Amino acid sequence: MSVALLPVPETRVLAVASHVVSGYVGNKIAVFVMQSLGCDVAALNTVQFSNHTGYKQWKGTKVTAQEIADLYDGLRQSYLDDFDMMLSGYIPGAEAVAAVGDIAKQLREKARDAPGKFFWVLDPVMGDNGRIYVAEDVVPAYKALVPHADLILPNQFEAELLSGVKIVDMATLAEAIQALHTTYRIPHVVITSVNLSAPDHPDSHLSVVGSTMTSSGKARLFKIVFPAIDCYFSGTGDMFAALMVVRMREAVSAVPGLGDTPSWLSADDVPTLDLPLARAAELVLDSMHELLERTSQGMAAVVERTRRGLTEADKADKKKLQLVRSKGAELQLVRNLECLRTPTVEFRAKEM
Amino acid sequence: MSVALLPVPETRVLAVASHVVSGYVGNKIAVFVMQSLGCDVAALNTVQFSNHTGYKQWKGTKVTAQEIADLYDGLRQSYLDDFDMMLSGYIPGAEAVAAVGDIAKQLREKARDAPGKFFWVLDPVMGDNGRIYVAEDVVPAYKALVPHADLILPNQFEAELLSGVKIVDMATLAEAIQALHTTYRIPHVVITSVNLSAPDHPDSHLSVVGSTMTSSGKARLFKIVFPAIDCYFSGTGDMFAALMVVRMREAVSAVPGLGDTPSWLSADDVPTLDLPLARAAELVLDSMHELLERTSQGMAAVVERTRRGLTEADKADKKKLQLVRSKGAELQLVRNLECLRTPTVEFRAKEM
Repeated sequence: MSVALLPVPETRVLAVASHVVSGYVGNKIAVFVMQSLGCDVAALNTVQFSNHTGYKQWKGTKVTAQEIADLYDGLRQSYLDDFDMMLSGYIPGAEAVAAVGDIAKQLREKARDAPGKFFWVLDPVMGDNGRIYVAEDVVPAYKALVPHADLILPNQFEAELLSGVKIVDMATLAEAIQALHTTYRIPHVVITSVNLSAPDHPDSHLSVVGSTMTSSGKARLFKIVFPAIDCYFSGTGDMFAALMVVRMREAVSAVPGLGDTPSWLSADDVPTLDLPLARAAELVLDSMHELLERTSQGMAAVVERTRRGLTEADKADKKKLQLVRSKGAELQLVRNLECLRTPTVEFRAKEM
Repeated sequence: MSVALLPVPETRVLAVASHVVSGYVGNKIAVFVMQSLGCDVAALNTVQFSNHTGYKQWKGTKVTAQEIADLYDGLRQSYLDDFDMMLSGYIPGAEAVAAVGDIAKQLREKARDAPGKFFWVLDPVMGDNGRIYVAEDVVPAYKALVPHADLILPNQFEAELLSGVKIVDMATLAEAIQALHTTYRIPHVVITSVNLSAPDHPDSHLSVVGSTMTSSGKARLFKIVFPAIDCYFSGTGDMFAALMVVRMREAVSAVPGLGDTPSWLSADDVPTLDLPLARAAELVLDSMHELLERTSQGMAAVVERTRRGLTEADKADKKKLQLVRSKGAELQLVRNLECLRTPTVEFRAKEM
């Protein structure tokens, strides 16, 4: 198999997130993305739902904090806890968040004599667009965990919640990221889906803003601008996170010695645009943008095919049609894997 | 993406089987296999265990019959039950087996006006090597379901349980398959891992024996002989089943009109070796054999790497070393995907 198809060295990842029977969010998309790029993924599912909650109706059950702890204990007792990386996404409730944090702390402790041997990518799933959609005590639970992570991937609203800085423009965004580095000593931050206008990009564009701190905790900020696609997709955050795991590992592996450095923290003299985090985020956005375009193109066919199965009464029901549209917006990854493996290079990071 | 990488037309599969956090059995391998070959897979997990039971210790929980029914209900109410195929594997308990059967019957009923629109591959997981490892009432529960399936994949012992025929040589094996066709009107049968000597193959070889019945229910028997690899792998049955789903769909799609025939049953004048079931099984064994060889080659490295993490006391403990060996025998699929996509053609079906 050629190098391009296996961008990472052997990598064992623990992925903790939700599972949906049908569709592509949480672990259902993240596990497949990481496996397709060559990672050996252990998938600890925090819920099993029939479909994602964007449909507004679903069936299924959540896993308790105790069950999460037990599953990890099961891994540990059989020497299956030899993880190089961990990715955590949606976790139901503050107790479960703490249980996942305990797993990460155990893995960190296990790697204490081997700096860089364990790397935790934390997606602090709490809300979006100004609205918290988890229980209130989940926010302090995440705040307690951030200092133990290596890379966090909050969206703009979650970055506000964690930093305490209201983000209204690029200046306050930069302030929020600096506050995250300072408050939590979190080495790497990427804020996904920043929706702020700036002189250098039109309103129909979004951006991703990231930073790897220096040894003194100073932000090194970069921004990647990409065109918005006019559709609400689910699972994009989870796919972004899974790709970041792979591409960060790949970019760090390309720098001799960096993988043996605590938190894979680049030396202070590394230019911002050469940071592995920036390189990784570029590739991730290339893949994401290609896949969202393919999904967008394929959506009408899914909607039409599904609509044909509806009764005439259902076809006249707006709520039912909304279900069909949710299905049409599911990421169409399985038949478009080349978006992951060999994306066209399109987006480049800029210094801020 | 080239045709070779997407062997099947758009195919939506419901996969019902166990989930393990670490390792590759049940849905954990089956879902990845089918997704990698281009299927849109809905994964209904019947258990979540830390690891497979071959390790002799594990943690986790089983899903109840009610939860299985609820998850399917969740799919149905949001128009997510538009499946072309279903694959069922391990199901915990007779009630849960019946619940999965109810799902299959609903899907069959939904497709009643479109022959061939729904195809159920049933792996009746009950035991192996002369030993039943499920509750006793699971056996009659499966017997009640077989008439509703299109293809069953019992191992030699499960074929005995279902047919009531004791299999001691190739003649009784043929008798058992004929009994399955006659008793259950099951159109397609493949018996996996047949371990019987025959004049045309040496003792170190195993075989897979299959049949697609004629319109009058007569068996059309073929056999594929392949060399045994001297190692106990887990998950091979689940991987075999997942590959059969894909390759059967592929082989049937290549025959004009066959996909619109009830149970994809080939006309009576189709020679045995031209049966899509035989064609599919050949490709499946090519993939399986390549992957098992790769796994076998990679096993020592996994065992050695894991062993290094053990304390000296653990290294002297036979039970602990057995855990390490179980880990070493996990299928190494993620970095050997070409075994799935482009296997070297090696094994050919013969008429029996």
